[in-house]
Amino acid sequence: MQQSIEEYIVALAQRAKKASRQLAQLTSAQKDAALEAMAQGLEANTAQILVENAKDMAAGRENGLSAALLDRLALDEKRLAQMAEGLRSVKALEDPVGEVEGMVKRPNGLLIGCQRVPMGVVAIIYEARPNVTSDVAGLCIKAGNAAILRGGKEALHSNLALSKVLRDALKGTDCPEDALLYIDQGGREATTYLMQLNGLVDVLIPRGGAGLIQHVVKNATVPVIETGVGNCHVFVDETAKIDQAIDIVINGKTTRPAVCNALETLLVHRSIAAEFLPRCAQKLKEKGVEIRGCQRTREWIPDALPASEEDYATEFLDLILAVRVVDGLDEAIAHVQRYSTGHSECIVTENYSNAQAFLQQVDAAAVYVNASTRFTDGFEFGLGAEIGISTQKLHARGPMGLKALTTTKYIVYGSGQIR
Amino acid sequence: MQQSIEEYIVALAQRAKKASRQLAQLTSAQKDAALEAMAQGLEANTAQILVENAKDMAAGRENGLSAALLDRLALDEKRLAQMAEGLRSVKALEDPVGEVEGMVKRPNGLLIGCQRVPMGVVAIIYEARPNVTSDVAGLCIKAGNAAILRGGKEALHSNLALSKVLRDALKGTDCPEDALLYIDQGGREATTYLMQLNGLVDVLIPRGGAGLIQHVVKNATVPVIETGVGNCHVFVDETAKIDQAIDIVINGKTTRPAVCNALETLLVHRSIAAEFLPRCAQKLKEKGVEIRGCQRTREWIPDALPASEEDYATEFLDLILAVRVVDGLDEAIAHVQRYSTGHSECIVTENYSNAQAFLQQVDAAAVYVNASTRFTDGFEFGLGAEIGISTQKLHARGPMGLKALTTTKYIVYGSGQIR
Repeated sequence: MQQSIEEYIVALAQRAKKASRQLAQLTSAQKDAALEAMAQGLEANTAQILVENAKDMAAGRENGLSAALLDRLALDEKRLAQMAEGLRSVKALEDPVGEVEGMVKRPNGLLIGCQRVPMGVVAIIYEARPNVTSDVAGLCIKAGNAAILRGGKEALHSNLALSKVLRDALKGTDCPEDALLYIDQGGREATTYLMQLNGLVDVLIPRGGAGLIQHVVKNATVPVIETGVGNCHVFVDETAKIDQAIDIVINGKTTRPAVCNALETLLVHRSIAAEFLPRCAQKLKEKGVEIRGCQRTREWIPDALPASEEDYATEFLDLILAVRVVDGLDEAIAHVQRYSTGHSECIVTENYSNAQAFLQQVDAAAVYVNASTRFTDGFEFGLGAEIGISTQKLHARGPMGLKALTTTKYIVYGSGQIR
Repeated sequence: MQQSIEEYIVALAQRAKKASRQLAQLTSAQKDAALEAMAQGLEANTAQILVENAKDMAAGRENGLSAALLDRLALDEKRLAQMAEGLRSVKALEDPVGEVEGMVKRPNGLLIGCQRVPMGVVAIIYEARPNVTSDVAGLCIKAGNAAILRGGKEALHSNLALSKVLRDALKGTDCPEDALLYIDQGGREATTYLMQLNGLVDVLIPRGGAGLIQHVVKNATVPVIETGVGNCHVFVDETAKIDQAIDIVINGKTTRPAVCNALETLLVHRSIAAEFLPRCAQKLKEKGVEIRGCQRTREWIPDALPASEEDYATEFLDLILAVRVVDGLDEAIAHVQRYSTGHSECIVTENYSNAQAFLQQVDAAAVYVNASTRFTDGFEFGLGAEIGISTQKLHARGPMGLKALTTTKYIVYGSGQIR
């Protein structure tokens, strides 16, 4: 009998749910042994994984994928070794599961505590980056969750090889193989069913561009954590140290323009524009950055293109920077409030009150004084690893580590209390 | 020019967003003064509110609302005084906003802390209980949020009167009037638009029956916290103290059968069934409880109706109890895993290992040993107040107090760091 796509996805999620119940009972040592086995699996099967990856690369070149996409898709021995190391670094992290926070004794004698427990089944939809497959599998398992994964179709051969190797590695451990399930059929229809499996999928995390994330937010009925879209601003206040401000702008815009914590719009106080903008523009041009500015910007950078309303709302993810001259802190904050996606925002200033006001008034996952927005990252924030950067306010905000993959339950020790 | 319902809702949410930015900057003292003014407003306008409530009550009787619904709808001087006291008790709670958790100094010198901040705009859709209007308005404002409220149409006159009184009370305070907005037009179409205002509505909390909650979960694209559906179980293990188990069952089922933490299914170890079930059934019948049991149950309670599969999946919210005899802990846990809505689950036992295993293996917001499930409540858990009981795993699980109405942001103090 032919299985429908819906039946396939439901059956997959039921296997994941069953595995998640076993996973939730494992000790940290058992989970760590599973992660070590997964790392060794990658090392032992490197050649085979690279053969499969080569198929994706060939198809990608044939289909005209950009150099940037091909680079994300490519695996080699070094990258696989890094993936194995990534699993070992997750293994080395402290297990958040089990801790009981703030157990209190109530007047009636009930002992009530809030225990950190795994989410259950975590579904992750991502794009054509095969390294994500082992990264998120490791994080989910360490936090005691079963993972249902679906990567971009451009990486299908690589992901099937990786998930097979990782699942095989679990066979010799106490961790059920079904802790890692990869959706290998059903196209977009399969992911649409997945998004609506309330009761089986405990959380869905889309990792990728704005299009993917919007598709998920619109169609999912299971709880979703939005990640990643970052229209990040730096405001250079009138008291900023010019060299520091230039360093922060250049670092934010040019080190990795395609990532979500890259700088997209520069706001400059009018009193410092004459001194700051020409020098900053010079450095930006040396790095190949196209500048799109407001009228006042173009007085100081005559060859800047005019910025449109649209430009201020755009996450360029490219060597393009929108620039606006503002009359002061209030106008800068108002601009950020209007266009921010709530990711990372920065003020460069030597004025104490302006620094505090910016921190207080700007509503974003990470708000900076005098540092590059590029630091918004799980490793840089000391979380040890990262499942993504949340730009929503529920559950987790900013870089998400292991703890974001857990929830809590109240445990109550009674002695016959009734109400 | 006629304003469409969509325009009306968008304009309302924009006013809320603007108010939320002002609210986020208020001190605890300013918010407390607003709550006191709201309490005094209710006291000073009791007569006028009761006149409007009488209109709802008359219409309700005319439309044949049940006695239980009419009771929820009714206001009187005592209930209004309780609502004012409720606002004062929220005023007395510690303000969670502003606290910085775990500020760390990174190796590069960055100081990174996680600060608790308001959500922004909280939308709450509820049924015909006008007391909810002041309860949730108070909680939202104390946590620094603007609230957009929409209650059941049966309570419209009461809610319009209450929201007008509460808004008027804010006029003399530092809290903007638009901290409280009530949707007074547009019917279901209005709430559907509200559910999809991503970027304006930061979280939506439906409070009410399963139908309302499912409608919201299916249609919302903004983040939602599911509340309330509770198919709660008590498992009476073979070592249970019989009298204690009976107390817990009677308390769970009969004290307020219509609430979400009420008991719905009783599971009984077969070794204790002969002794326990007849005595427990006697007490249940004295309280007017209808028993629906499995075949083995009916051996000990011959007049019990046969329980269907459907009965075990049903939140009766009524004086009906499903009963099943099981072979032991594993079967009890498997039953709970299958039918639980993840609200409150209890084991009654004197066996240490079984108690710990039940706490560990059952996946619910609150898991009890030897105490009534009726304790799952913000006041009983010591949160001081409650905006609802979350049955989802994201963000908040179990009774939600003020903290569940806040989020965090990372604040980063730098000195020119780049990456």
